[in-house]
Amino acid sequence: MTANLFIISAASGAGKTSLVHALLQQDPAVRLSVSHTTRAPRPGEQEGVHYHFVNVTTFQRMQEEGDFIESAHVHGNRYGTSRSAVEAQLAAGFDVILEIDWQGAAQVRKLLPQAVSIFVLPPSLEELARRLNDRGQDSADVIAIRLAAAREEMRHVTEFDYVTINDSFAVALEDIQAIVRAQRLRSQAQLKQHAALIGTLV
Amino acid sequence: MTANLFIISAASGAGKTSLVHALLQQDPAVRLSVSHTTRAPRPGEQEGVHYHFVNVTTFQRMQEEGDFIESAHVHGNRYGTSRSAVEAQLAAGFDVILEIDWQGAAQVRKLLPQAVSIFVLPPSLEELARRLNDRGQDSADVIAIRLAAAREEMRHVTEFDYVTINDSFAVALEDIQAIVRAQRLRSQAQLKQHAALIGTLV
Repeated sequence: MTANLFIISAASGAGKTSLVHALLQQDPAVRLSVSHTTRAPRPGEQEGVHYHFVNVTTFQRMQEEGDFIESAHVHGNRYGTSRSAVEAQLAAGFDVILEIDWQGAAQVRKLLPQAVSIFVLPPSLEELARRLNDRGQDSADVIAIRLAAAREEMRHVTEFDYVTINDSFAVALEDIQAIVRAQRLRSQAQLKQHAALIGTLV
Repeated sequence: MTANLFIISAASGAGKTSLVHALLQQDPAVRLSVSHTTRAPRPGEQEGVHYHFVNVTTFQRMQEEGDFIESAHVHGNRYGTSRSAVEAQLAAGFDVILEIDWQGAAQVRKLLPQAVSIFVLPPSLEELARRLNDRGQDSADVIAIRLAAAREEMRHVTEFDYVTINDSFAVALEDIQAIVRAQRLRSQAQLKQHAALIGTLV
């Protein structure tokens, strides 16, 4: 298998989701991992696209069978990344992106140490606060709670392989594309990918 | 120090020198390491640009003092890469490229394991033979000797961190640029580079 597994994490407001969306649009060899969740679909959410929607019994069975490489319990709902789903995407030759938080990243790193992790930082605390308050409809208390959660997430930046600063969206996207491209050029991947050529050369 | 040390190796005829030249032209933060040699300057070669030209006594003194991170004896002349010269370039903030063969690469890897090594492969043996015979003025024997040396060099491709195949020059150049860019995004480098920002964020 020569496909790569990438973890992308960030403080809420750093622009991670938009960056991942742009990467997926520009690189057909990259696929987003689709998580399993026990929460109900929201309007417009599609099974297998936004999430795999499962009931609690199914989720627990998958968990007992050790199928989740990371999982979390948030506001009474469960979320998890299925190892078999990720491995099926990798086996089909797609690079897979996990868009998860630092706790999920830590779980995946333990089980799949070959995963390459990228952390997206905002250009400043002021800009982050501005983005977290973009709609201007939330109370100062709500903004403060979001900012505290963002800072807690960013405290784990040192655990990641790569760091990009999303000041210019275009530059941060190019950063992530360079990391993905470089990973494909790793000799282990290239020697498999081009085994026939290399066999004739040496 | 956040600057990076890159090793670029290839079989003669793979296009390494042209790729490095193009990289240097397009990226002012990258500098080529200038080797020391005991051979006489050829017409047009400048001290400190193409080589540091030194006599055998100086070369031997540097070698005894352990200043060479790699050295070789070729056709009666000595060549070496000075650790202090490389470290001065890195300390000035430049990424440094060593354009050396697999034996030099192996020596550098031992002394400076943080060095990132890239191997450039030709797209086929036929194309390599064509490039080695580009001038069409050499005998079949001479070509055969060059091709055998190239194959011996390529046998060491597995020792390198990254591999690019120089089929399209533009694509291979972009490959190397992606590897350089990704290396600059390594969290260890980024955390130093952006220490002030990160201090305010977390």
